Amino acid sequence: MRHKRYAIGADIGGTNLRVALVNREGEIVERVKTSSTNNVFDSLVSAIDRFYSDDVAGIGIGVAGVIERKKGIVKRSPNLPSVEGIGFTDGIRQRFSLPVYIENDANAAALGERWAGAGREFKSFVLFTLGTGIGGGVIYDGHLLDIAAELGHISIEAAGVRCPCGNNGCLESYASARAMTGRAVELIESGTESLMKACCEGNVYKISPEDIYSYALEGDNLARETLKTAGRYLGIGIAGAINIFSPEAVILTGGLIGAWNIYVETAIKEVSKRAFPELSGSTKILPSILKGDAGVIGAACLAFDKTRN
Amino acid sequence: MRHKRYAIGADIGGTNLRVALVNREGEIVERVKTSSTNNVFDSLVSAIDRFYSDDVAGIGIGVAGVIERKKGIVKRSPNLPSVEGIGFTDGIRQRFSLPVYIENDANAAALGERWAGAGREFKSFVLFTLGTGIGGGVIYDGHLLDIAAELGHISIEAAGVRCPCGNNGCLESYASARAMTGRAVELIESGTESLMKACCEGNVYKISPEDIYSYALEGDNLARETLKTAGRYLGIGIAGAINIFSPEAVILTGGLIGAWNIYVETAIKEVSKRAFPELSGSTKILPSILKGDAGVIGAACLAFDKTRN
Repeated sequence: MRHKRYAIGADIGGTNLRVALVNREGEIVERVKTSSTNNVFDSLVSAIDRFYSDDVAGIGIGVAGVIERKKGIVKRSPNLPSVEGIGFTDGIRQRFSLPVYIENDANAAALGERWAGAGREFKSFVLFTLGTGIGGGVIYDGHLLDIAAELGHISIEAAGVRCPCGNNGCLESYASARAMTGRAVELIESGTESLMKACCEGNVYKISPEDIYSYALEGDNLARETLKTAGRYLGIGIAGAINIFSPEAVILTGGLIGAWNIYVETAIKEVSKRAFPELSGSTKILPSILKGDAGVIGAACLAFDKTRN
Repeated sequence: MRHKRYAIGADIGGTNLRVALVNREGEIVERVKTSSTNNVFDSLVSAIDRFYSDDVAGIGIGVAGVIERKKGIVKRSPNLPSVEGIGFTDGIRQRFSLPVYIENDANAAALGERWAGAGREFKSFVLFTLGTGIGGGVIYDGHLLDIAAELGHISIEAAGVRCPCGNNGCLESYASARAMTGRAVELIESGTESLMKACCEGNVYKISPEDIYSYALEGDNLARETLKTAGRYLGIGIAGAINIFSPEAVILTGGLIGAWNIYVETAIKEVSKRAFPELSGSTKILPSILKGDAGVIGAACLAFDKTRN
């Protein structure tokens, strides 16, 4: 039997739906990106429809949240509640008569980096997705661990702020994009001097992490401190992951790695103060190679791996 | 070739050295327990010597700390610095001409519970050792994950107290036996009323977790609050482990589980507030069956598994 040449990968994150046609080398042949906020199931169907052919081996879907793999549904998604309960795999399988697999989006991204990205050279690594929220995925002995890996939802401040997940003091509430913009706005509103007051035509609620980063590069103290504070917390999270998984590498992906030289460099310093040096000394902390594509490529990888045709 | 009937397991923890002769059913046939604080290598040799015969397949050693398995040494042991750098496997192998394996003590305990204890019925569980320090071990898909699993050395208070490991705010500093006695003494010294003032003939520095537990049962508020505070922190640690590993069970071992109805029950309540309910709802939290023997039995299991003779 001839190997089918492609798999379709989908990545449903906090704000975007990405769907791509991926070949057996882990390369994206064609892609589409749209919003995940409205009718995500219908958008997914029409995107898959675009790439569907008899040369497609299967479909993999990565979704933010806690996945019930057997039932093919999202049990819980604090950052994307609209997907909770949707029967993704059954629904898609019925329409396209192809094998369909579902995985947590950060787990899919870890699989993508392992297959075709920064994780190729490692047998074990922990991946953090750093965006609106924070997710995690763990590769062990060359394979994805089938665990929740909700690394953003670990308390790093026992009595810290309430997280949409119900916990208090989650890493995500201190080191994510949402945490950064929230902190910047809070500081500006409390009267701290900053060039960012003029940002977004004075509507500080529209400040993005990209804005914070560009003001930081211009030397704005509030912007720098916001990035560094989030970076220190990220370092606490990475140190914890190293003390638990003792991985060969930690791979960072998501929009926030654009601020690497301030945010991530601060995190790396914090890791060196906190993790067991016998472990962190041999752990490389690296940026993703696939960046925003890690999730769709990993989801496609899942379809290739599992279908074997 | 006839299967050799026994393996020798050793468990070198914070204060005790336990060595046992274990059969292929995971039962202890003979045992010795001594202190781990003086000349631990020599004590280990003389204990093994007692059980050594040509019916022994191999020797497994569990030691508190970060293990370098290939070299057979303990790279780091914050609670037992005297073992750092000792070439356990080479040294023991030379003397007894048997295969020798080394593992972190909590990892060994997880293996023991999986083989012959509370973990028999689970394909995946996280084990916490709750004693002077706090350790962890993770069973995944029926097998021990070869990771550091230093679950006691994860920051749960970002700017918390300094831990001997170098980190700040480690779970171990808030939920271990050492944390409990430290907190009780601190409260007594600050003038808080308590029956425990009379404990240990007034020498409060000698208060043990067992003392705290018996005073708590007598209704002493300070003793109860000390156990509950430690329990709440333990709950934060367990919730984190559930959000990361989504295990079928969490198994608790070590001296502190004697205070189950206050310390662990408080932890379980905290878990229900903090972990993703979709995960914690299906996670059982159970006491160890092998108790203090989990480590030696797991270490012996390692020797049976790896030698295959």
